[in-house]
Amino acid sequence: MGSVFGNKVKISVFGESHGTAIGVVIDGLPSGERIDMEEVYRQMARRAPGNDKTATPRKEADKPEILSGLLDSVTTGAPLAAVIYNTNTRSGDYGNIMNAPRPGHSDYTAYLRYGGFNDVRGGGHFSGRLTANMVFAGAVIRQILKRRGIEIAAHIYSIGNTYDEPFEPTGISSQLIERLNGEKFALVDPSKEEALRAEVDAVRKKGDSIGGIVECIVQGMPSGVGEPMFGGVENVISSAVFGVPAVKGIEFGSGFSGSHSKGSENNDEFYYDENGNVRTRTNNHGGALGGITSGMPILFRAAVKPTPSISVEQNTIDLQEKHGAKLSVKGRHDPCIVTRAVSVIEAAAAIAVINML
Amino acid sequence: MGSVFGNKVKISVFGESHGTAIGVVIDGLPSGERIDMEEVYRQMARRAPGNDKTATPRKEADKPEILSGLLDSVTTGAPLAAVIYNTNTRSGDYGNIMNAPRPGHSDYTAYLRYGGFNDVRGGGHFSGRLTANMVFAGAVIRQILKRRGIEIAAHIYSIGNTYDEPFEPTGISSQLIERLNGEKFALVDPSKEEALRAEVDAVRKKGDSIGGIVECIVQGMPSGVGEPMFGGVENVISSAVFGVPAVKGIEFGSGFSGSHSKGSENNDEFYYDENGNVRTRTNNHGGALGGITSGMPILFRAAVKPTPSISVEQNTIDLQEKHGAKLSVKGRHDPCIVTRAVSVIEAAAAIAVINML
Amino acid sequence: MGSVFGNKVKISVFGESHGTAIGVVIDGLPSGERIDMEEVYRQMARRAPGNDKTATPRKEADKPEILSGLLDSVTTGAPLAAVIYNTNTRSGDYGNIMNAPRPGHSDYTAYLRYGGFNDVRGGGHFSGRLTANMVFAGAVIRQILKRRGIEIAAHIYSIGNTYDEPFEPTGISSQLIERLNGEKFALVDPSKEEALRAEVDAVRKKGDSIGGIVECIVQGMPSGVGEPMFGGVENVISSAVFGVPAVKGIEFGSGFSGSHSKGSENNDEFYYDENGNVRTRTNNHGGALGGITSGMPILFRAAVKPTPSISVEQNTIDLQEKHGAKLSVKGRHDPCIVTRAVSVIEAAAAIAVINML
Amino acid sequence: MGSVFGNKVKISVFGESHGTAIGVVIDGLPSGERIDMEEVYRQMARRAPGNDKTATPRKEADKPEILSGLLDSVTTGAPLAAVIYNTNTRSGDYGNIMNAPRPGHSDYTAYLRYGGFNDVRGGGHFSGRLTANMVFAGAVIRQILKRRGIEIAAHIYSIGNTYDEPFEPTGISSQLIERLNGEKFALVDPSKEEALRAEVDAVRKKGDSIGGIVECIVQGMPSGVGEPMFGGVENVISSAVFGVPAVKGIEFGSGFSGSHSKGSENNDEFYYDENGNVRTRTNNHGGALGGITSGMPILFRAAVKPTPSISVEQNTIDLQEKHGAKLSVKGRHDPCIVTRAVSVIEAAAAIAVINML
Repeated sequence: MGSVFGNKVKISVFGESHGTAIGVVIDGLPSGERIDMEEVYRQMARRAPGNDKTATPRKEADKPEILSGLLDSVTTGAPLAAVIYNTNTRSGDYGNIMNAPRPGHSDYTAYLRYGGFNDVRGGGHFSGRLTANMVFAGAVIRQILKRRGIEIAAHIYSIGNTYDEPFEPTGISSQLIERLNGEKFALVDPSKEEALRAEVDAVRKKGDSIGGIVECIVQGMPSGVGEPMFGGVENVISSAVFGVPAVKGIEFGSGFSGSHSKGSENNDEFYYDENGNVRTRTNNHGGALGGITSGMPILFRAAVKPTPSISVEQNTIDLQEKHGAKLSVKGRHDPCIVTRAVSVIEAAAAIAVINML
Repeated sequence: MGSVFGNKVKISVFGESHGTAIGVVIDGLPSGERIDMEEVYRQMARRAPGNDKTATPRKEADKPEILSGLLDSVTTGAPLAAVIYNTNTRSGDYGNIMNAPRPGHSDYTAYLRYGGFNDVRGGGHFSGRLTANMVFAGAVIRQILKRRGIEIAAHIYSIGNTYDEPFEPTGISSQLIERLNGEKFALVDPSKEEALRAEVDAVRKKGDSIGGIVECIVQGMPSGVGEPMFGGVENVISSAVFGVPAVKGIEFGSGFSGSHSKGSENNDEFYYDENGNVRTRTNNHGGALGGITSGMPILFRAAVKPTPSISVEQNTIDLQEKHGAKLSVKGRHDPCIVTRAVSVIEAAAAIAVINML
Repeated sequence: MGSVFGNKVKISVFGESHGTAIGVVIDGLPSGERIDMEEVYRQMARRAPGNDKTATPRKEADKPEILSGLLDSVTTGAPLAAVIYNTNTRSGDYGNIMNAPRPGHSDYTAYLRYGGFNDVRGGGHFSGRLTANMVFAGAVIRQILKRRGIEIAAHIYSIGNTYDEPFEPTGISSQLIERLNGEKFALVDPSKEEALRAEVDAVRKKGDSIGGIVECIVQGMPSGVGEPMFGGVENVISSAVFGVPAVKGIEFGSGFSGSHSKGSENNDEFYYDENGNVRTRTNNHGGALGGITSGMPILFRAAVKPTPSISVEQNTIDLQEKHGAKLSVKGRHDPCIVTRAVSVIEAAAAIAVINML
Repeated sequence: MGSVFGNKVKISVFGESHGTAIGVVIDGLPSGERIDMEEVYRQMARRAPGNDKTATPRKEADKPEILSGLLDSVTTGAPLAAVIYNTNTRSGDYGNIMNAPRPGHSDYTAYLRYGGFNDVRGGGHFSGRLTANMVFAGAVIRQILKRRGIEIAAHIYSIGNTYDEPFEPTGISSQLIERLNGEKFALVDPSKEEALRAEVDAVRKKGDSIGGIVECIVQGMPSGVGEPMFGGVENVISSAVFGVPAVKGIEFGSGFSGSHSKGSENNDEFYYDENGNVRTRTNNHGGALGGITSGMPILFRAAVKPTPSISVEQNTIDLQEKHGAKLSVKGRHDPCIVTRAVSVIEAAAAIAVINML
């Protein structure tokens, strides 16, 4: 039952990469919310493969069909369900992985978990394709959040060892948010694009892949939101963000870097701004203290591992014959998933945030 | 309702630092499990203040009283409830923080969340003292897990910029686990103790504090455990570990470091060991692929921020008078919480793990 | 978020009567379970309208399409999703109810709950049509339960003031279960059919409707299953069964009748049967004591109110003009929903039972 | 984990009848709510044994100690925890039931569920004594609800075959609510007291017991509250009320009686009252349509079975020797639990209601 998220707005994700369809049910949305489907499609296109050179050239017809919950583009209050039929699938590319699990991929653990009955084609339910559902849900939810003054943006913080400019932790402009929300290779400093693409090109030529870090900001979040202990901002966001395949780490505010610092450096001093609002001079706390929002932006970074599917030959095992084997993954794979992960992580943040309100 | 964790074994934590008592209810433990209370006390002593120079000299009588769920030291199947009465409290030390919230602490956000009705003395429900409940629950649960072959250990990975030896990611010896489980300043390489203590001494003398990283390993976990998407190992563990105050980041396996690497470096090759068991040569995945255990140790690191309560003077605000203020936190505070966090993070891991079985 | 049920096997229901489609996602089914879709269709046909004179003559093409979770008729472990497209809908029939809420129906409360944004056509998300999803889920789950020795059957206990023979509370034959599972007018004593149909005919002619009681039995349930207090058999089953529209009461074993009796009459004496199994001579407890299964059949009865949609003229209100109004509901409605409710209540029981195992 | 209830306000109940203590943790209460502990004690005294001739003469010192969550009688927002130490226990009275399970009691099923490790003394965690926790929680919550205009009352609807006057379904006076809330033998028509007590006296003399029905009303509930399907008023209330031991049935509004009626009789006609509020002329729907509140009082009746512990000799089994046995339950038992169940069912309703707001 791991494919359901949330206590207030429940997101139920279904589908397998090469099955009939994938989709999502969102239960608990407020009624009366107008949803701009063109904007939803725009967000989905940011995640879709085939749109950027860093990504797989494989195309998806990721147009979701709304089955319920919307009437004349307005939420009815009933569960909002959407389905995306699978079309452009080439099962033959994956024929060998049932025997030889890809190192670093869920092939082997899914095989164990489901006793070999899982649909291995394209990764089945574990496929990155399932994140299209998250982006759909996130795109719907973000429109509702925006109406309440809450905006979310993410960017490519790093690929390999090359970095974009980080977000200003105490807040970024709405123009920057809007620009990033429209980009497929989202950078704070567009002049870094060439250098970051070079990291991807270098590995793609060798049939290898490269990881990176996505930084995400949630602005306009009301203060005083969240629960102590296990219901805090960090708990809820991390349990959504680790739902994005390939994410292996998350840090809030100064995060791991802050753990190397002193209290006198890491503590964020409070002050009243010119409007009488309480703010902090720095944002090492990343927007949450004791799990509860301070009114400063929620700021986190997610570590995305390099795509496990590479054509470089690797050692693995043959699960049927029970001996060692060699594997060179064929098919169309992303040399770097970070680009596409940007919109998925924004979506995960949105799904988490609406469950805290 | 953030103080309740778990779907299978529910941990319900209560208490305020200077209230009558703190305690915990654990609902869903298997019946018929013998609990060695001396071992529970031993684990609680590792977290207790006053036992190590890095920690506050304040003493706690952290002896929990069992209210239900145990009969002749054996679990009955009914909720196991324990209470720890608060005794050695000096409320006067905290008299000023109602007005002047400590930078980096939850004083301000708790004030917002509870409209000023929260018990501010000693941090109230947000106090680190509440983690005694987690260690109690963890110590009980770890005995049950150990009977099923699952062992948990953590150590001080770093303080400031000084490091212990890391765990061998593919597994550590049971002797090392046992040794670490008995130590208050838990290190893989005891020869590093002097250097790590020097980091703490340096800040203590200045009334400052320092952060660090705790590394934790879960060994003997059966393979094929966990759920896809939002119910994965990383999701469940992170949502428990972020329940430990001061944790601001978590990474599994190679984590953030892995995000700077290539697939050919980060992928863990599978092989059959001499007993015919599937293993990986390296453990960059940290024991979980697609959220599901591979049979390799679960390995994670948690970033612990420097203690916010420092006597160094800081800028803050006066919430009553609504202007700026200066604060120098008095009272007995930890210059470095990392030492004591080791056993709390082990406990959080235990609480998460039992909810995945 | 009321349209999601379960902690172990999560059932997420979506759809609106006159929207694009209805459907259900079932997350948490065991993998490797063969599902006989013909049997699923057979169960769905029992609920479908247009198949029996007691029901509405309106036809539905209730053929669910499987979107994920099944591969070659075997569960993969991924969420099982099914969708039923809406076809035969005549929205015109319902044009007036937005203003004039039907007495006894959810028109008015749905209007309040969703601020008038809910899809009122055909009852929207509150339509009895949504129970097709439950029967689908139940039919899948019942095949899995049956493989574990657990069988479920229900019958028309009463319509109006006419009664079928009740179930023998200590157990019924597998033949009877099988026969009932195949019937659209399910009776223990088929000779009662004429009398029971006469109750329906009497009200149909007048444009009125009639209620009844459905009795349901779950046999083969292992003993020792369930949780104390809020997780008991009665709690879980009732929270599923009240999800069936029109159910307004539930009783287990001797239920309300037992509340008029003495302990010496109502207590069920234990004995060892010829195979050394513990049983009770009577089954006034309905299979659960302290919320936990005794090994005797789970037996309950659900009170089904008369269908609120009647053509008899009633007083209601005009929500737009804010004055009184008269209403005579047009369209094709069931004079008695009890017949069709039989398979829905079996399904609700199945959904509850699999969440207790 | 069945001893935890609620999604918004979590009630975690612990304790065993003859253990050290029983208690409850309430997580999620609003902060800043003044709690009158004298009123809490008054409610607890209504449930306490030894206060009425229909009940066991055994006395309890049911004075709860508040451990956290209250400061100067005002909720702090932290979990509210209370503990009641067990004092007046005579374990000797129950020495025989480990072998010979009481017919109609949870002795046997608890033995199965917990593999014989459960504390059998006094029923352990299944003891009616645990309901003191519910009354405590309910009494706290009812004060919070009352401040929001929501009042709850219950009365003895029937004992055996003798009836009190039923509640007027469309609403009762605040005076009647207040009077009933103060009574230990709560009747709408006090002149019925003698006849109802006679029912109890008749069985007590014979060492037998008698069941009854409790009727409960929730007034002032806002309209438009609740969720469709599985999150409806009936689902939530029934899953709380079946947490009260001995409850074997529940019906809302006209309930089972309504199932014998016609739509034209059972439908509740809407009208605008003199203040322009929508009401229904009758309240056969019991305050909820489609699971959502209509603004009319929530009205339900719970069937309470006769106390299983009777001194009349019964057949049972010897679980050790595995043969039949005779049992005559000794000790101080209630001949009729209905009297005391009134306040427990009010409490269960309160716990359910606050989770719907």
